[in-house]
Amino acid sequence: MPKYVFHYFNGKGLGEPVRLLLAFGDEGFEDHRVAFNEWTEFKPKTPFGQMPFLEFDGKQYAQSLSLARYLGNKYDLGGDTLEDALEIDQNVDLIHDLLTKGIIAYHEEDEAVKEKKYAEFNKDVFPNLLEKLNEIITKNNGHVALGKLTWGDFVFVGWFDYIKDLLVVPDLEKKYPVFQKVVDAVYSIPKVKTYADAVGPTEF
Amino acid sequence: MPKYVFHYFNGKGLGEPVRLLLAFGDEGFEDHRVAFNEWTEFKPKTPFGQMPFLEFDGKQYAQSLSLARYLGNKYDLGGDTLEDALEIDQNVDLIHDLLTKGIIAYHEEDEAVKEKKYAEFNKDVFPNLLEKLNEIITKNNGHVALGKLTWGDFVFVGWFDYIKDLLVVPDLEKKYPVFQKVVDAVYSIPKVKTYADAVGPTEF
Repeated sequence: MPKYVFHYFNGKGLGEPVRLLLAFGDEGFEDHRVAFNEWTEFKPKTPFGQMPFLEFDGKQYAQSLSLARYLGNKYDLGGDTLEDALEIDQNVDLIHDLLTKGIIAYHEEDEAVKEKKYAEFNKDVFPNLLEKLNEIITKNNGHVALGKLTWGDFVFVGWFDYIKDLLVVPDLEKKYPVFQKVVDAVYSIPKVKTYADAVGPTEF
Repeated sequence: MPKYVFHYFNGKGLGEPVRLLLAFGDEGFEDHRVAFNEWTEFKPKTPFGQMPFLEFDGKQYAQSLSLARYLGNKYDLGGDTLEDALEIDQNVDLIHDLLTKGIIAYHEEDEAVKEKKYAEFNKDVFPNLLEKLNEIITKNNGHVALGKLTWGDFVFVGWFDYIKDLLVVPDLEKKYPVFQKVVDAVYSIPKVKTYADAVGPTEF
């Protein structure tokens, strides 16, 4: 039986940072991918009525960022001091801000409101957050924080495709080439590459 | 000169968990409250174009939750193990989910859309998150996690008034009496009480 069981939809979405970290840690994990049509039945079995969540040692834990921080610290991808940990956390929260704004626009059901939201966010919100992120990653030599590989990189890379979908900018790395450096840093790790290469077609 | 300078608007809002923790830590902090009409001029001086942020040791750090986690760990209000830290983090992220949903509804500018959002969120989203939070806090004897005082309690209490405003439920603690236990646990700490009693009228 694998050490971890990870539950999420069959796509990168919110869950991929945790999968990348589990692959990196190499303790063994079952990658339980829940089809959209199974979700209603599965939902009551989740700790918060949400996915992703992770099971280990007879317990269930939820929340993608909390799980990524936990695994990152476990696998020595955190900071050595509280101040280093704070630097990772604040930069990850900025990425999370960008993701959240993208989700607000993308998942708006009213088409007219959705168009208005994108117009508004494309004017100030997305560019400001992206410019700040570009500045941070450039300053950190192609990493999210501390000028080296941390679990913050795994969050950025795991969410990157989702963020591009939400912002409707499929070639975001063309505008910000330094973003590609983070992606390459994570996917060039052999254990991560092995995991990524083995994943077959997904629902999204 | 105080050890910390904390910058936020003149209200509880997003910033109060950090103020409560700074009061608890008692290392000294300047409580810089920025008036709304000063914000445009002040914004470029902030690390992320956002408030709150905290200055110490010649550096600036942003993001309310990251700052609360940092101070919490510094003042021994975190977990002893990585799993304990994960439990605090995931429960805090659930509170953050509730806050974020509240912000989405409250700050919707189009009145008709806003009304629709509240109708939708009041049906499922807010009740589900509140019930889950009630279940967690009840299980933890009036605390957010670990069955004892942690920085998670400071986040809940610091954001509580803001959440009540956003959800437009001024007496939320009547429906969920256990929420009041968390509030009382934090405000009964003498240093926190001294800080809270000394704060004069605020803008919001």
